[in-house]
Amino acid sequence: MRRRQIYEGKAKIIYEGPEPGTVVQYFKDDATAFNNQKKGTITGKGVLNNRISEYLMTRLESIGIPTHFVRRLNMREQLVREVEIVPIEVVVRNIAAGTLVKRLGLEEGARLPRSIVEYYYKNDELGDPLVSEEHITAFGWANTQDLDEMLQYALRINDFLCGLFLGVGLKLVDFKLEFGRLWEDEEMRIVLADEISPDSCRIWDVATDKKLDKDRFRRDLGEVEEAYQEVARRLGVLPEAGPIDIKGPRLMQ
Amino acid sequence: MRRRQIYEGKAKIIYEGPEPGTVVQYFKDDATAFNNQKKGTITGKGVLNNRISEYLMTRLESIGIPTHFVRRLNMREQLVREVEIVPIEVVVRNIAAGTLVKRLGLEEGARLPRSIVEYYYKNDELGDPLVSEEHITAFGWANTQDLDEMLQYALRINDFLCGLFLGVGLKLVDFKLEFGRLWEDEEMRIVLADEISPDSCRIWDVATDKKLDKDRFRRDLGEVEEAYQEVARRLGVLPEAGPIDIKGPRLMQ
Repeated sequence: MRRRQIYEGKAKIIYEGPEPGTVVQYFKDDATAFNNQKKGTITGKGVLNNRISEYLMTRLESIGIPTHFVRRLNMREQLVREVEIVPIEVVVRNIAAGTLVKRLGLEEGARLPRSIVEYYYKNDELGDPLVSEEHITAFGWANTQDLDEMLQYALRINDFLCGLFLGVGLKLVDFKLEFGRLWEDEEMRIVLADEISPDSCRIWDVATDKKLDKDRFRRDLGEVEEAYQEVARRLGVLPEAGPIDIKGPRLMQ
Repeated sequence: MRRRQIYEGKAKIIYEGPEPGTVVQYFKDDATAFNNQKKGTITGKGVLNNRISEYLMTRLESIGIPTHFVRRLNMREQLVREVEIVPIEVVVRNIAAGTLVKRLGLEEGARLPRSIVEYYYKNDELGDPLVSEEHITAFGWANTQDLDEMLQYALRINDFLCGLFLGVGLKLVDFKLEFGRLWEDEEMRIVLADEISPDSCRIWDVATDKKLDKDRFRRDLGEVEEAYQEVARRLGVLPEAGPIDIKGPRLMQ
């Protein structure tokens, strides 16, 4: 059966779901960086991110963070609730890395005085500019209440994930979250959406500070596939059998 | 008498004051833009900004906004309280202009949905990057209480200045404020510092939208001196007699 494609993003495709109020999230191996200026493929990434995101979303549900996740469908697909994405990327930072280093003149790897939450306006044309609560509420991208809810969830998610990663010898340097609006019985709820994976997190090995995330692709550090596999392996979600770069619907389980 | 110079900025020099706890603010004609990449002179600017800032600061004092201003000393100098400058530029925007237009893809001149307050980290090397409350409090540039006080003052100043400018046919598009910390009887107070002038404000004519501020210099629009004079004239603070480009201590009144 041919499903209707709703949206194709840089790393995922969204298809119409099997039941009303759901959509299918398909994880591609495509990778982009620097606002689409750099493009490439990380073989097996889609399969791994599907697993990693499933694992992290279900664990977050278990501590009371509402998410869009319903269930994994196959190697590259998961069923999620249909939401209206809030056009704000919520970034939580524990250690200086990425754009923050340059913007504020910090040293990469320096622990921040405390965790810092940043907001970026999701807009490819503008290069996802940093914005503050002022911009977000003035332009109506989210209201104060929604934003506060997102902030509180982001802080809880940070605490939980920092612990979870530390437990498997990983440092959560920073990560990006997206949230969505969901209507249920005429009430609007904010839920965690999109994905959580080495595409959206900076993850370093605790002992060696080795980068195990998309920075290996962004900065041509090599061993890109291996980094994603390592994160999946440590989290205990590496697909059991066979090569992990299986592609196409023919071989989906 | 030769006074000790404490600091030389782009548009002002700070000298030791005649009494403890004071400094002298000297207004230069030098103008810079685009983080010092463009440099020039606006003849008579220092004399006019000294007057305009005196006028606006004393009017703000009269509605209960504490400022560093003590009194004007001569054509180019004013006596101000010595403060520790908070390294944050507070920008209030009413109409889309400047960097906001480009960053958020807006049309210059569009009225914003509401007034927006932004914070920039004062650091020439980094190009004064936009920061949010999160960065400011995490790095200790200001604490939550100070920042909230600055925000409340900024909003009141915006209301007052919008009214004052409108009364003389001017639109206050946006402006930048700096605040300082002042110790009095072992108590720290936040007071408005620096200057308020066509160097730090965007001011347009209500009827024609003609720019009457530093954008004429930044964007090579011509009639730069005339714009500063026009603002001073409308505010009723144009120095009465003679040419306004009098320079040097010899002719100071």
